[in-house]
Amino acid sequence: MNIINSLAKTKKAARTLAVTPTAVKNKVLARLADLILKNKALIIKENSKDLANARKNGLSEALIDRLTLNEKRIADMASSVKEVIKLNDPIGTVLSSWIRPMGIKIQKVRVPLGVICMIYESRPNVTVDSASLCLKSGNAIILRGGKEAINSNKLLAKLISQALSSAGLSKDTVWFVDSTDRKIVYDLVKMDKFIDLLIPRGSEEMISEIRKQSTIPVLSHGKGLCTTYIDKSANVPMAVNITFNAKVQRPGVCNATETLLVHKDVAHKVLPVLAEKLSQADVEIRGCTKTTAIIKGIKKATTPDWDTEFHDLILAVKVVNSVDEAIAHINTHSSGHSETIITQNKTTAEKFLKEIDSSAVFHNASTRLHDGSVFGFGSELGISTQKIHARGTMGMNELTSTKYVVRGTGQIRK
Amino acid sequence: MNIINSLAKTKKAARTLAVTPTAVKNKVLARLADLILKNKALIIKENSKDLANARKNGLSEALIDRLTLNEKRIADMASSVKEVIKLNDPIGTVLSSWIRPMGIKIQKVRVPLGVICMIYESRPNVTVDSASLCLKSGNAIILRGGKEAINSNKLLAKLISQALSSAGLSKDTVWFVDSTDRKIVYDLVKMDKFIDLLIPRGSEEMISEIRKQSTIPVLSHGKGLCTTYIDKSANVPMAVNITFNAKVQRPGVCNATETLLVHKDVAHKVLPVLAEKLSQADVEIRGCTKTTAIIKGIKKATTPDWDTEFHDLILAVKVVNSVDEAIAHINTHSSGHSETIITQNKTTAEKFLKEIDSSAVFHNASTRLHDGSVFGFGSELGISTQKIHARGTMGMNELTSTKYVVRGTGQIRK
Repeated sequence: MNIINSLAKTKKAARTLAVTPTAVKNKVLARLADLILKNKALIIKENSKDLANARKNGLSEALIDRLTLNEKRIADMASSVKEVIKLNDPIGTVLSSWIRPMGIKIQKVRVPLGVICMIYESRPNVTVDSASLCLKSGNAIILRGGKEAINSNKLLAKLISQALSSAGLSKDTVWFVDSTDRKIVYDLVKMDKFIDLLIPRGSEEMISEIRKQSTIPVLSHGKGLCTTYIDKSANVPMAVNITFNAKVQRPGVCNATETLLVHKDVAHKVLPVLAEKLSQADVEIRGCTKTTAIIKGIKKATTPDWDTEFHDLILAVKVVNSVDEAIAHINTHSSGHSETIITQNKTTAEKFLKEIDSSAVFHNASTRLHDGSVFGFGSELGISTQKIHARGTMGMNELTSTKYVVRGTGQIRK
Repeated sequence: MNIINSLAKTKKAARTLAVTPTAVKNKVLARLADLILKNKALIIKENSKDLANARKNGLSEALIDRLTLNEKRIADMASSVKEVIKLNDPIGTVLSSWIRPMGIKIQKVRVPLGVICMIYESRPNVTVDSASLCLKSGNAIILRGGKEAINSNKLLAKLISQALSSAGLSKDTVWFVDSTDRKIVYDLVKMDKFIDLLIPRGSEEMISEIRKQSTIPVLSHGKGLCTTYIDKSANVPMAVNITFNAKVQRPGVCNATETLLVHKDVAHKVLPVLAEKLSQADVEIRGCTKTTAIIKGIKKATTPDWDTEFHDLILAVKVVNSVDEAIAHINTHSSGHSETIITQNKTTAEKFLKEIDSSAVFHNASTRLHDGSVFGFGSELGISTQKIHARGTMGMNELTSTKYVVRGTGQIRK
């Protein structure tokens, strides 16, 4: 497979897409949503081949579920494409503009990155989600899905290609890598001359392996060891409600709370009520010595528990002496994802919001709220815990760069 | 040398500096400017040791000049620290804020990156320049200067340390690596657990080697193969004036023009006048076939000339048939640094500004104007040609990240 040839074609298509008007990009997306709905039966048929292979290869039920496309999921896929149509086109936005004494007018303008390569596993809807966000933000795309979903992905890529053609855009704008050879992934991640950004979506192992191998900048979803801190001035029912939500509402996701810190002055009031409520939801509490003295019959927390993302109905609980101790604990043990303080004291809240070094910090709200759709960004590409380029929930703006546009009347350097 | 111990101390100091008020940071800088001026004689004495070693080791006169600190340069160093005091503190700036239907108030706030490691060569003023920009933007710093400047740098680092102490800040906020062992550089660039950003400043070879070795994100000055395009609707005297400035005013720097493209309809008018003026400044012209037919007695351009950053009084000149050919040439051969179009036709200018994929694009102005001080950013850390995190001239904003600050009244995820 001649990847250089395909890469060169994608890079060329990227320059055209970069200056394609919003209306044309939206036309592609509208056509794609349409094609997805019209080809429901065919999508289910191709998907059933993947599902049959998955069963033959003994994939787990969880993976088979992620792989499955049914009528509802296909409709959702089309809806999310329509959502992207509604989002503002970030390209061409003037982020700032000013005039210098010599008379030149400077603008800082949002532009596409160029070519984005998505490397992902199982879920075939990622093919459509990623393609629509990249297209709307003016970026050409290389799609490399997992071999489990190859039949579903091939068909979806064909529909994307048809949608591009119907609006007069080159099919090269989206290159679906129609090969399941793993070697291609390791070739792609070195192609920094053609690819501007890599977005791996999948297991932690896969992402970390790609980061290690890649010579291209990588944007990826980060690990979430999130913390809820109940201050001495907390409203107790609110504290119980938020902590319960942050732990129980969806324990397997990155913004679920894994560690609870409770100020010693409020621990006796809040912990028994909370323990009662959590036990009804089958949450296992692992407590520090002070916690085990208050809540009877629970496990003692071990040292590694303070650094563990349980992804499960398990909560590590520690009683602290002050907000400073809470902040120090979080800045040492959390993964810098999302942390919240529950307090009625504004000064304490502001101190926490300022001193915690995480991608999102909350006051009197659940860590579960750190999410692109909750924040109003429409679709999201995950939540970044890195500090360079993109931090926190990532949407289309994170798929862009900027350039300076300078208009003069003959100015030179003196 | 126990670098882990020093790194841990720097990281700890970074958390304190991150929440240090602007007034305290400015106090450190004012004290530093003061100490530099007061210790002029001592600085010259330490610098003379470096100069003596440089002569003993047979360093080139150009390198010795870069290494030299005299009264004037020391005064300039102090002035540039005072300039940083005047710049706005980026930390805490609210970049955007909005309220969601559920009632949470979201802010996107500028925060420091954390720990920045500068790896640089010869010029000792980089020690002071970098430290002031990093400090003002709330970042702790690791300084690793070249062995040629070790005596000068040691003293300057001692003054920085005194300035920190005088304002009550920890000396660990700036760690000057007091060893010229090269191995330490290769250890440092792998310390992604402690360092948030690497900024190498020096030769292209050094920067490329660091990029290859590093597991930490790297921000660096990019290569500049800049282009001036004279359109058919150009004002000829303006075109001659800008091209001359872009090539001759300081040919050794990154934003000097290396390639001139001229529209065929104006080539006969502009090239003879320009050639005459350039020859007076000893500029060597290397032309395409059409150019050599117009300007007699010049060299013919070779294929590599279109991809060469001459850094010298040499200009490659090509006659093109259209603005589209000019844009295609630039997007293929330029390094994506700075390009300009000279034209009186606004439509052509806007097309060029939109379709050129470079960090700065100019209309009727010299490429030499792409510069932090010209743009009004005060000091700069070079010009980036990468698209991730920072593109174009880099100042303090590029030393920051963001975080989401969310204020609620008990909101949970439904």
